[in-house]
Amino acid sequence: MKPVLLLNGPNLNLLGQRDPFYYGDHSLDDIVLNVREFFESHSIELESYQSNHEGDLIDQLHRAHESYSGVLFNPGAYTHTSVALRDAVEAIAPPVIEVHISNVHNREKFREKSFIAPVSAGQIVGFGVESYLVAAFAMTKILKKERESINDS
Amino acid sequence: MKPVLLLNGPNLNLLGQRDPFYYGDHSLDDIVLNVREFFESHSIELESYQSNHEGDLIDQLHRAHESYSGVLFNPGAYTHTSVALRDAVEAIAPPVIEVHISNVHNREKFREKSFIAPVSAGQIVGFGVESYLVAAFAMTKILKKERESINDS
Amino acid sequence: MKPVLLLNGPNLNLLGQRDPFYYGDHSLDDIVLNVREFFESHSIELESYQSNHEGDLIDQLHRAHESYSGVLFNPGAYTHTSVALRDAVEAIAPPVIEVHISNVHNREKFREKSFIAPVSAGQIVGFGVESYLVAAFAMTKILKKERESINDS
Amino acid sequence: MKPVLLLNGPNLNLLGQRDPFYYGDHSLDDIVLNVREFFESHSIELESYQSNHEGDLIDQLHRAHESYSGVLFNPGAYTHTSVALRDAVEAIAPPVIEVHISNVHNREKFREKSFIAPVSAGQIVGFGVESYLVAAFAMTKILKKERESINDS
Amino acid sequence: MKPVLLLNGPNLNLLGQRDPFYYGDHSLDDIVLNVREFFESHSIELESYQSNHEGDLIDQLHRAHESYSGVLFNPGAYTHTSVALRDAVEAIAPPVIEVHISNVHNREKFREKSFIAPVSAGQIVGFGVESYLVAAFAMTKILKKERESINDS
Amino acid sequence: MKPVLLLNGPNLNLLGQRDPFYYGDHSLDDIVLNVREFFESHSIELESYQSNHEGDLIDQLHRAHESYSGVLFNPGAYTHTSVALRDAVEAIAPPVIEVHISNVHNREKFREKSFIAPVSAGQIVGFGVESYLVAAFAMTKILKKERESINDS
Amino acid sequence: MKPVLLLNGPNLNLLGQRDPFYYGDHSLDDIVLNVREFFESHSIELESYQSNHEGDLIDQLHRAHESYSGVLFNPGAYTHTSVALRDAVEAIAPPVIEVHISNVHNREKFREKSFIAPVSAGQIVGFGVESYLVAAFAMTKILKKERESINDS
Amino acid sequence: MKPVLLLNGPNLNLLGQRDPFYYGDHSLDDIVLNVREFFESHSIELESYQSNHEGDLIDQLHRAHESYSGVLFNPGAYTHTSVALRDAVEAIAPPVIEVHISNVHNREKFREKSFIAPVSAGQIVGFGVESYLVAAFAMTKILKKERESINDS
Amino acid sequence: MKPVLLLNGPNLNLLGQRDPFYYGDHSLDDIVLNVREFFESHSIELESYQSNHEGDLIDQLHRAHESYSGVLFNPGAYTHTSVALRDAVEAIAPPVIEVHISNVHNREKFREKSFIAPVSAGQIVGFGVESYLVAAFAMTKILKKERESINDS
Amino acid sequence: MKPVLLLNGPNLNLLGQRDPFYYGDHSLDDIVLNVREFFESHSIELESYQSNHEGDLIDQLHRAHESYSGVLFNPGAYTHTSVALRDAVEAIAPPVIEVHISNVHNREKFREKSFIAPVSAGQIVGFGVESYLVAAFAMTKILKKERESINDS
Amino acid sequence: MKPVLLLNGPNLNLLGQRDPFYYGDHSLDDIVLNVREFFESHSIELESYQSNHEGDLIDQLHRAHESYSGVLFNPGAYTHTSVALRDAVEAIAPPVIEVHISNVHNREKFREKSFIAPVSAGQIVGFGVESYLVAAFAMTKILKKERESINDS
Amino acid sequence: MKPVLLLNGPNLNLLGQRDPFYYGDHSLDDIVLNVREFFESHSIELESYQSNHEGDLIDQLHRAHESYSGVLFNPGAYTHTSVALRDAVEAIAPPVIEVHISNVHNREKFREKSFIAPVSAGQIVGFGVESYLVAAFAMTKILKKERESINDS
Repeated sequence: MKPVLLLNGPNLNLLGQRDPFYYGDHSLDDIVLNVREFFESHSIELESYQSNHEGDLIDQLHRAHESYSGVLFNPGAYTHTSVALRDAVEAIAPPVIEVHISNVHNREKFREKSFIAPVSAGQIVGFGVESYLVAAFAMTKILKKERESINDS
Repeated sequence: MKPVLLLNGPNLNLLGQRDPFYYGDHSLDDIVLNVREFFESHSIELESYQSNHEGDLIDQLHRAHESYSGVLFNPGAYTHTSVALRDAVEAIAPPVIEVHISNVHNREKFREKSFIAPVSAGQIVGFGVESYLVAAFAMTKILKKERESINDS
Repeated sequence: MKPVLLLNGPNLNLLGQRDPFYYGDHSLDDIVLNVREFFESHSIELESYQSNHEGDLIDQLHRAHESYSGVLFNPGAYTHTSVALRDAVEAIAPPVIEVHISNVHNREKFREKSFIAPVSAGQIVGFGVESYLVAAFAMTKILKKERESINDS
Repeated sequence: MKPVLLLNGPNLNLLGQRDPFYYGDHSLDDIVLNVREFFESHSIELESYQSNHEGDLIDQLHRAHESYSGVLFNPGAYTHTSVALRDAVEAIAPPVIEVHISNVHNREKFREKSFIAPVSAGQIVGFGVESYLVAAFAMTKILKKERESINDS
Repeated sequence: MKPVLLLNGPNLNLLGQRDPFYYGDHSLDDIVLNVREFFESHSIELESYQSNHEGDLIDQLHRAHESYSGVLFNPGAYTHTSVALRDAVEAIAPPVIEVHISNVHNREKFREKSFIAPVSAGQIVGFGVESYLVAAFAMTKILKKERESINDS
Repeated sequence: MKPVLLLNGPNLNLLGQRDPFYYGDHSLDDIVLNVREFFESHSIELESYQSNHEGDLIDQLHRAHESYSGVLFNPGAYTHTSVALRDAVEAIAPPVIEVHISNVHNREKFREKSFIAPVSAGQIVGFGVESYLVAAFAMTKILKKERESINDS
Repeated sequence: MKPVLLLNGPNLNLLGQRDPFYYGDHSLDDIVLNVREFFESHSIELESYQSNHEGDLIDQLHRAHESYSGVLFNPGAYTHTSVALRDAVEAIAPPVIEVHISNVHNREKFREKSFIAPVSAGQIVGFGVESYLVAAFAMTKILKKERESINDS
Repeated sequence: MKPVLLLNGPNLNLLGQRDPFYYGDHSLDDIVLNVREFFESHSIELESYQSNHEGDLIDQLHRAHESYSGVLFNPGAYTHTSVALRDAVEAIAPPVIEVHISNVHNREKFREKSFIAPVSAGQIVGFGVESYLVAAFAMTKILKKERESINDS
Repeated sequence: MKPVLLLNGPNLNLLGQRDPFYYGDHSLDDIVLNVREFFESHSIELESYQSNHEGDLIDQLHRAHESYSGVLFNPGAYTHTSVALRDAVEAIAPPVIEVHISNVHNREKFREKSFIAPVSAGQIVGFGVESYLVAAFAMTKILKKERESINDS
Repeated sequence: MKPVLLLNGPNLNLLGQRDPFYYGDHSLDDIVLNVREFFESHSIELESYQSNHEGDLIDQLHRAHESYSGVLFNPGAYTHTSVALRDAVEAIAPPVIEVHISNVHNREKFREKSFIAPVSAGQIVGFGVESYLVAAFAMTKILKKERESINDS
Repeated sequence: MKPVLLLNGPNLNLLGQRDPFYYGDHSLDDIVLNVREFFESHSIELESYQSNHEGDLIDQLHRAHESYSGVLFNPGAYTHTSVALRDAVEAIAPPVIEVHISNVHNREKFREKSFIAPVSAGQIVGFGVESYLVAAFAMTKILKKERESINDS
Repeated sequence: MKPVLLLNGPNLNLLGQRDPFYYGDHSLDDIVLNVREFFESHSIELESYQSNHEGDLIDQLHRAHESYSGVLFNPGAYTHTSVALRDAVEAIAPPVIEVHISNVHNREKFREKSFIAPVSAGQIVGFGVESYLVAAFAMTKILKKERESINDS
C-alpha cells in the first residue's frame, strides 16, 4: 500500500511558536510523530511535507496522484484564497481530507470560506492539534472502504 | 463517567430512505449500533435521540448539561437556520461536536453557513455515515484530554 | 386511492380573523369544506392538518410518504425560513403543491424567497382563499397523469 | 362576455422543440387547443397571441384593457427583466395571471425574480404545460367572483 | 382587567446559569417575582410562560388574543429568525412589547435584525434583567392610555 | 434650426388613463400641445414620437442624430433596464434631456437607478406633467448656449 | 407673496474656484444675481443663504416653513449623507426643489444616492449653473399651480 | 446628585408640528415638563437641550462627562449617520439611554441601523412620546444600581 | 453547407460613427466585407443582419435553427440585459459565437456580466473590429470538427 | 513660507481622556507641542485647530486655501461619513495629509472606509500619537519637493 | 522578429489527465505542437512555459517585456485570484492574450471574474483546446497591425 | 541592534519602468540607497529583499522573526489577496510597517482592501517613493520607544 501524505501549508512551520490561543503549543514535528505513530499502528507509512509556497503545494498534490494513497491537507491561509489548490485537489485521484487546527468559523469572516472543502473527501475542523489525529482516523476508514470495494469487485 | 449523547435533528429519522447520493443507505439504527459499539470499546455508554422539533433538540441540549459528558450533534437543516440551537450549544458545559453526513460545502449555497460551528468543539463534515464514527473518535480524544487535565490539577 | 393531505402551517388557524386585506374573511374550516367538496367530486378523500409547530409539519410530511397520494401545503411563514421543511418535502415521494393565499411577491422583501418552491411540484400564489381550490385542481391533474403513466407501463 | 387572451412571450413559439426537460414536448398549438377547450366548456372564448418582441406584448396588454375580460400571461424570459411589461400589467383593468411552465425557482438564480408577480392577480408556476390549464381554472374562478360582485351591487 | 403575559423564548429558562456577561446572574424565577410585584402595585395580574418551542410561543400568542391585556415578550434567539412569530404578534390585538436583556446591537451581526420589532408596540433593549421592569413600566403606560381612550369615547 | 424631438417610451401612451397618483390626469396629446406651444414661442418646432418598442426608440434616437437639434426623452420603464438606449443616447450628437413625470426616487427601489442619466445632458424628475415644460425650458437654455458658442468662434 | 429661498450647502461658496470641469466658472454671486433677475421678472423676491454647516441648513429650512413660499436647495455633498436634512425637507410645508450643478449620476458611486430626492417636489440635475435657472422656472410653475388651486377653492 | 440631561437632536424642535403619524402631537416643551415631573418625584433634576447641529450635540455630550449623572438621548436622524456622536457617547462616563419616539424598525430601511445603539446603556424605541418617560424610568433604575454598588464597596 | 449568419445587435449600425476609442473607425459594411472574404476563402457563404430590436434578433436566431450552420453574434448592449436572447441562443442547434469589439471587462461594471456567454460556443472579446475575423476563424474550426465527427460516425 | 495647519476633528479634544487602548494617554496639547517643536526645527510655523463641528472643519479647510502651505488633518469619525469634507479637501490647493492615531483597519468595519483618503496627499495610520510626528515628517518632504520644483522652473 | 510565448498557469500540466468534460483529452504537449505549427506557418517562433507557481509566471511575464513579441496566456485558476499577475500583464509592453479552454462563464460563480481581462489585449474563452489556436490567429492579427503601424510611421 | 529589512513584493522590481503616473520614475535601487542613507544616519543597518513569489516573502518574514528589528513591507498586489502574508506578519515579533507608493484608495476598488493593514504596526500610503522614507522615519520612532520601554523596566 502506498504511503499517506501529511501536507501542510503556509505558516504551519511556525506551530508551537504562533499564537497558542488558536494553534496550541505543539511543534509540527511533534504532530508528525504523533500521526505517524497512529498510521504505523495501522501498517500505513506516513510522509510529511510543509511549504509556504502555493506552487509547491500544487506540485506535491500532483505528485500525490501517483505516489500516495491519500492526503491529509491543512492548506492554512490558502484555504480561503486559492482556486489553484482547489483545482489540484479536484484533479487528483487519492482522497484529500481537509484539516484545520483552529475553529475557522469562530475567527475573522474571511476564514469562513474554504475553496478546498467542496472538493475534499471530508473536513475536520477545530479540534486543536488533535485535528490531525482525527483526520488520520478518518483516512483509515476511507482507505478501508476503498480496499473493501476493490475486493468486492 | 456520564454517557455520551448522539443527537440527531430533522429528517435524519429518514436515513436509509432519503437521497442515497447525499446520505448513503444505512438507517439511523445501523449508525447508532455502530457508534455505540465504538464507544463501548472505550467503556463509554451511548444514548441516542432524534427529533424533527427544534424545541425538543434545545430541551435535550439543556438536559445534556447535567446528564452527559459530551454530545455528537447532527443538527440537520437547523444547522443553517437556528440561532436558538446555537445559543443552547454555547450555554452548556459538555463538549458538542457538530457532525454532517454529506459535504454541506458542495450543495446549495444556504447549506454553507453553520450557526452551530462557531460554538462547537469541532466539526466533522462529509465522510458519509462514517462521519459519526470519526466524531466518536474525536470525542474520545476530547474526553481523554479533559480527564488528564483534571488528574493533573 | 390514498387520500390527499391539506397541510397548513403557522397562524393559518387564524384565517378569518387575521388581516383580511391579505387573507380574506373565510375561516380555515370553510376552506377545508370547500376543498373537500371539490376532491369528492373527483372521488378523492381529503384530510386536513394545521399546526404552528415546524416539527409537527415535518412529522406530517414524513407520514404522508406512506399515507397520502399528494399534499397541498401552505407552509405560512415557514416558507421563508425553514430548510428543514424543504428537506422533508424533497425526501418524500408524493407530489407537494405549495399554496399561498396572499401575493407574497407584493409584501415585505423577506416573503419573496421560498425555500419550499424549488422542491415542490408546483406553486399557486396570490388567488386569495381560492388558491386552495386552484391547487386542488392542479393536484387532480398531477394524480391523473401519474395514474396514466402507471397504466401505460 | 369578452374573450380571454392567452399571451405568450419570447421563445415560447419553440415549445415542443426547446429543452423538453424544462418545457415538455407539447407545441404551443397543442396547448392553445387544450386551453380553448377548457374555456369553451365554461362558455368563454379564447384568443391566443405570441411574440418575441417586448413592445408587441405591451401593445397587446394595452389592447386587452378594452377587449378582453382577462389575460393568461407567460412572459417567458421578460419575466425577469421587463419593468415595462410590469407597468403595462399594472396599468390595465382586466386580471392578469402569470403562468410558468418550468419551476423557475429551481433553475438559474436570475430566474427567481419576477417583475410581473407583484402586480399580477396570481401566479401558477411549475406544473409543466398543465400550468396553462391550472391558470385557466383560476381565471374562471376570478371571473365568476367578479360577476357575482357586480350582480351583488 | 385581564392579566399581562410575560412570555420568554428559547434558552431563557437558563437565566442565572447562562453567560453572566450578557445575561446577568438572576434566574427567570427571580425576574418573574420582580415583575409580578411591579404589576401588582398597579393592580395588574401577571402570568408567565417560557418555552424553547417556536410553535408553543405562537400558540401562547394566539391564546393571548383573548386572555391577556398585553404581552411582555422576550423572543430570545427566535427574534432574529422567526417570521412565524412576527405574524403571530401582528395578528393579535393586545400590545406586545419586545424585551431584550442584552444589548443585541453590540454582539454578533445576526443579532442586529429583529423580525418582531416592526410589529411590536415598542422595544426595550439592553438594560440587563431590568429590561423586564422597564417593559412593565411601559406596559402600564400603554394600558392606561388605552383605558383613557376607551373612557373618552 | 432643426426641430426638437419629444420622445416617449413604454406605457406613456396611456397618460391620463394610468394611475393618476403618479402620472396626473393629462393625456399625452395635451402635453405635446403644451410643450409645442412653449417651443413655438421660442420659434422652435416640436415633433413627437411615442413607442412601446425599445428598438423603435433606438431607431428614433439614431434618426435624431441628423434630424433634430435636441431630444426631450422620457424613457419610461426602459430607464431602469436598457443599456441599449443608453448607448444610443451616448452615441448621438444632439443633447438629450431625461424627463420623468413621477418622482422615481420615491417609488420601488428598482426605479431609482437610471441607465440614461449618466449620459444625458441633464435630468428633470418629479414635477408631474409640468416636467416636460421644465425640460423644454432647459432645452432652450442649452440650445441658446450652443448657438452663442458657435457665434463666438 | 412670500419670497423664495435659494439655499446652498457645503463648498458651494467656492463656486468659480472649484473644479470648473464639474462646476463651471461662475461664482455663487453671479448665480444669485441671475436667478434673482428671473424671479423678479415674475414679481417674486429671492433671498439667498449658503452654509457649510448641516445644522445651519436645517435651521434655515425650519425658518422657511413660515417665511418662504418655496426653496431652491442645492444640498451639495450633504445630499448623499444627511438624513437630518431629509427630515427637515419633509417636515416643512413649502415646496423644496433639489438642484445639482453637475451630473451626479456620472461621478463617484456614492454621489448617485440622494436622501433628499424622495421628499423633494422635484429634482433638476446636471445642467451646469443653468440648473438654478431651470429650477427657478419649475418653482414658478409650482407656485402658479398652488395659487390657482387656492383660487379655485 | 448631578442632574440628568435630556438631549434631543435634529428636527425634534418641530415636535407637535411634524408628521403626527410618527411623532404624536405633543410639543417638546410638553415632553420636557412631563419628564421633569417624573424625575422630580425621584428628587432628580432635569436639564434639557435641543440642537440641529451635530457638533453642538457632541459638545453637550462632552460637557455631560463632568456635569450630568446620565443622559436621555434622542439623536433623531443622526442616529443613522453619525459615527462622531457614537464616539462621543462611548467616550464619556455617564450612562446614555437612546430614545426613539417612532418605531424606527417599521419605516425606511436606512432608519433600522443605529450607530448609537451598540455603545448606549440601553434603547427605548417606539412608544410615542411616552418613550421619554419609559427612558426616564430606566434611568432611575440604572442610577439606583450605581448608587448601590458604590455603597456596597 | 448552410451559410453562416453574422448577427449584430443594437447601435452596431453606427460603427464607424460611434466612439472610435472603443469601436474603431470601420463601418459595419467594411466588417461584413472583410468577414465574408475570409469565409469565402473557406468556401462558406456569409449572410449579415443587424437590428436594434431585441425581438428581431430573437426571430433571426430562431430562423438560424434551420437555415444557418453557425452564428457570429455581437449582441451589443443586450449582452448584459437580455435573458430572452440567452434562451434563444440556448434553444437552437447551430453553434453561436459571442463577439465583442471593445474590451467589455475594462468599461462600466454593468458591461462585465454577459447573459449570453454561458450558453455560447465560445467568446471573443476586445480585439477591436478584428474580433469578428477571430470569431470567423474560430467558427471554421468548430464547423470542421463537426464535419469530422459526422464523417467519423 | 506660510504656516502648516494641524486640524483635528470630533472628539479629539478628549485625547488623553478617551479610551487609552486606541488613543494613548497624551493630551492634544502635548501633541501640538511635540509637532510644533518638530516643524520649528525645520523653520516652519504650526497652527492648531480642533472642532467637533463638520462645518467648522470645512470652513478651516477653505481658509487653508489662502493661509497655509499644508494641512495635517485627523478628521476623526468624519473620515468615514463626510463627503462634504472630502469635497473641501479636494477643492483646495495645499497638500492635505490624512492622519489617524489608531489602526482604523483593526476596529469596526465602518471605520475601514475613508472618504478623505482618495483625495489626500497621503495617509498615515496607526502609529499612536506618533502618527502626527510621522505626518509632520512627510509634510516636510512634500513641501521641500514643491519648493524644489518651483526653483527648477 | 522576437518569438511568441505560450504561458500556462497552474494545473495545466495535467491537461489530458484532468476532467475531460471541461478540458478535453489533449495533453499540453499536443497543444504546444499544434500552436507552434500554426505560428511557424506565419514564420513566428513559439516558446512554451508552464508553472504552478504564481511568482514564476510573474517572472516570465517580466522576461517577456524584452524577449517576446507577444504572449498567449492561460492563467488557469490564478485568473480569478491574482492581482499580482494583472499588474505584471499591465506593466509590460508586448500584447498579452488571455486564453481559456473551458467556458468559465458556465461553471462556478468564482470563475466568472477575471483580474487579467481588463488589462489584456483580448480574451478567447471556451473553444476547448482550440482556444489556443484561435488565440494564435488573433496574435498574428495584432502583430501584423503593429508592424504596419511601424512601417506607416 | 539588528538591522531593519526593506521587503518588497511583486512587480516592485519594475520600479522606474512601470506606470510612472502611479509609481514615479525612481528604480528600486535608488530607493534602497535613499532609505539606507536615512537609517545609517540613525546608526541602523538596512537589508533589502524583493520577490515576486508569495512564498518567498513569507519565508523572509519568518526569517525576520530572529534576524531583524523591524520590517518595512510593501506587499504590492499581495496586499489585497494574501491571507498567508497576513498570518506571517501577525505571527512574528518585530514591528512591520505597511508601505504603499501609490494612493491605493484612489484606484480600482479591489485595491482598497488590505489584508495586511489590521496586523501591521502602521500604514504609510500614497507619498510616492517618499513613502519609504516616511516609513523609515516611523520605524525609528517605534524602535526608540521599544528601547525606552526596555530601559524603563
